[in-house]
Amino acid sequence: MNAPDLFNTLRRAIPAGFLEALAEQFGERFSTAHAVREHHGRDESPYPPMLPDGVVFANSTEEVAWVARHCHSHKVPLIPYGVGSSLEGHLLAVQGGISLDLSGMNQLVSVNPEDFTATVQAGVTRKQLNEEIRNTGLFFPIDPGADASLGGMAATRASGTNAVRYGTMRENVMSLKVVTADGRVIETANRARKSAAGYDLTRIFVGSEGTLGIITEVTIRLYPQPEAISAAICNFPTLQAAVQSVIEIIQMGVPVARVEFMDAWAVKATNAYSKLTLTESPLLLFEFHGSPAGVKEQAEIVQSITHDNGGMDFEWAEQPEDRSRLWTARHNAYFAGLQLRPGCRSSTTDVCVPISRLAECVSETAAELNEASFPYTIVGHVGDGNFHVLMLLDPDNPAEWTESEQLNRRLVERAIRMQGTCTGEHGVGLHKMEFMQAEHGQDALDLMSSLKLAFDPHNILNPGKIIPQA
Amino acid sequence: MNAPDLFNTLRRAIPAGFLEALAEQFGERFSTAHAVREHHGRDESPYPPMLPDGVVFANSTEEVAWVARHCHSHKVPLIPYGVGSSLEGHLLAVQGGISLDLSGMNQLVSVNPEDFTATVQAGVTRKQLNEEIRNTGLFFPIDPGADASLGGMAATRASGTNAVRYGTMRENVMSLKVVTADGRVIETANRARKSAAGYDLTRIFVGSEGTLGIITEVTIRLYPQPEAISAAICNFPTLQAAVQSVIEIIQMGVPVARVEFMDAWAVKATNAYSKLTLTESPLLLFEFHGSPAGVKEQAEIVQSITHDNGGMDFEWAEQPEDRSRLWTARHNAYFAGLQLRPGCRSSTTDVCVPISRLAECVSETAAELNEASFPYTIVGHVGDGNFHVLMLLDPDNPAEWTESEQLNRRLVERAIRMQGTCTGEHGVGLHKMEFMQAEHGQDALDLMSSLKLAFDPHNILNPGKIIPQA
Repeated sequence: MNAPDLFNTLRRAIPAGFLEALAEQFGERFSTAHAVREHHGRDESPYPPMLPDGVVFANSTEEVAWVARHCHSHKVPLIPYGVGSSLEGHLLAVQGGISLDLSGMNQLVSVNPEDFTATVQAGVTRKQLNEEIRNTGLFFPIDPGADASLGGMAATRASGTNAVRYGTMRENVMSLKVVTADGRVIETANRARKSAAGYDLTRIFVGSEGTLGIITEVTIRLYPQPEAISAAICNFPTLQAAVQSVIEIIQMGVPVARVEFMDAWAVKATNAYSKLTLTESPLLLFEFHGSPAGVKEQAEIVQSITHDNGGMDFEWAEQPEDRSRLWTARHNAYFAGLQLRPGCRSSTTDVCVPISRLAECVSETAAELNEASFPYTIVGHVGDGNFHVLMLLDPDNPAEWTESEQLNRRLVERAIRMQGTCTGEHGVGLHKMEFMQAEHGQDALDLMSSLKLAFDPHNILNPGKIIPQA
Repeated sequence: MNAPDLFNTLRRAIPAGFLEALAEQFGERFSTAHAVREHHGRDESPYPPMLPDGVVFANSTEEVAWVARHCHSHKVPLIPYGVGSSLEGHLLAVQGGISLDLSGMNQLVSVNPEDFTATVQAGVTRKQLNEEIRNTGLFFPIDPGADASLGGMAATRASGTNAVRYGTMRENVMSLKVVTADGRVIETANRARKSAAGYDLTRIFVGSEGTLGIITEVTIRLYPQPEAISAAICNFPTLQAAVQSVIEIIQMGVPVARVEFMDAWAVKATNAYSKLTLTESPLLLFEFHGSPAGVKEQAEIVQSITHDNGGMDFEWAEQPEDRSRLWTARHNAYFAGLQLRPGCRSSTTDVCVPISRLAECVSETAAELNEASFPYTIVGHVGDGNFHVLMLLDPDNPAEWTESEQLNRRLVERAIRMQGTCTGEHGVGLHKMEFMQAEHGQDALDLMSSLKLAFDPHNILNPGKIIPQA
């Protein structure tokens, strides 16, 4: 699982005195210990760690700005770090430098229930946020599998199971506090629900993966906890029948809050890992939010559509604890999948296509994977046209890695051919860089490069990511 | 109504042979006639026209690219033009150059009902689009007052009465075809509902007002025509009672499709202009979309909230023709207002604040306007916290212009103080440039300038707009 030639892994020289100045400034909150550097030089991707030269644990925007100025003036790479849950190599210090751990910045700055907004420090995690605002009657819906930090979620344009109803971080970040490459501090917007006052700095930084600035605070939209919630499971004889049901549900305009697909292997893994007894065939997991009457109405339409597509029993999870067990199981599908092949290393993929092409894309992909020499699972946020393949590889068998990379490449090419994207929610990191040209074209990629150069002229912010050869 | 010193109105020299080359390339679709130039050197703003040196009527992206290359290599300004309905001076050729009229690019490129998307040329107007897709059962909700072009709406990040439910152009543009300053053609995204593949080029161009690139095609999200629609009017004894009702409705999480405010003067003007008999006190106009049961449920909650706030009769407009008359009247509120003072020239404002501050912001503003020496109306997309003041000025009395500018400045400062924005939907153009620093801070404005320079190094694209002194 080595880095392809595409990656720029030329480590930069650290100037004399540079690390000493950090040690003087941060004391025990600066470390060059190997274990700390190794922990910060990896993520959940299949790549081996690439270590930063040191790690700073920052406690404030002012400290982040100090580090940025220091790195900028010495042209040393700087990589923001939240909880380390990214999946595509985002956090690897391919050119060395400093990892900036923001997990200590974990305070809620303000909550404005009457405006449905909250401002939090970048290190606050999504579960912590929802715990702390529970008594307001509001919640934040974006839920990537991991308990990621809000700063990291903004930086990777994360989404999750609720995106079909509530959108992704793109739609739900209202404003960011950002430290620029040279250590200036800006606010990207205000708290108005809409604005036409100039360029959309907020959405320039959302999804920029730490390459354009360092997010230190996030202002997000909150939503009222639904008056009524119900969840249901429906099994299908085939993958196609399940996916076709989703297409019809979306096309009917039913405002489902969640609709998740799991293939038979993912169900089997989840049963084992989460001690459930789900029928081991392709299934859809639904959740409905609204008034009691609205939820009932949605469920009836969905039940009728699934029935017409050969859906078997529609099983309800009405009690909060049953729903919670179900969604916890879904969020753990990644870890459950790993247990199908003990000791394996995984490679995940993350394409997203227009919903009209989803059945075709999933079917062709499954047909190819059935010929593979390793096990796999498919799960997906299918209401958005987004699905993941988890390929379970023997870490000691390079042929499997090569095979998985070929399958991944064919899947991405298929998605792009179907007017889709190489990544719906994981981000580019290292693993999707090779597809950026095919997806965007060289001219668009050149515009992205010019933006990167304008915002980070010394290329110190998470260098070697998103833009090939940066 | 002269341009303040902030505006860079230094007309650039047109190189010898430059206009002749355009004449040769475009024949009758290039004009230097005074009437044509005057028509293209103005918009609905209070400023006198500032004429371009010539006007090109383009029919294709390739033609736009040809003009961009020509202007780029000769450093001549280039200003995209849709239907001329912008309100803040966006289209004035403050530095001369070429106006590029895209109204001939008025074809639907593709409609994908199964994915809820359509791709249209930039000159297609919103009414034309909705006419042409009517038989699909889908509609496009964004509705600025004017029948604007989709290209113009994307370029100004437009919204309108439906934004409280469906979002603005920011949320509803999926992808753009854009010609860059030097004449390259890019697609900013694909048709997947979500993507994490690199920088958000789409939202960089949405709201860029022709200063970063020229939009030639727009791919947008469509929505199912609601199964049931109902509209209602409710009058209130005071402005505060009306606005307080809106705040409570939004805070209850009722998914109203539209909630519009009109003050007593706006109602009076609308009655006269649209031959209606609305009660001439502050009023709210509602529209509810959903299933029959859902619409009924929403309306009951809203009726109860308005009643508790002293709302008077809740009058229903159930028939499509009644609803249509009502919303046409609302869309004509601008023209109706002008008739309150025949021969007047208007100045409009467009602040947006967090909803928790809306009552305070509108009340303070109305109190000041009651002391003004000219008539005014207030209307607002109050569900978003966005409202407009229409100030009706004697064009021959410069003192009224000065007074209106002072009122506008105090209103904008008030909105920014309340964590709001100087423009919710009209855009910056010329008229809001002076507030950009107060709203964003110099460091953020410098980042915007660096983006502009990166994308348009010769500053040919709509120069002198958005960024002061550009």
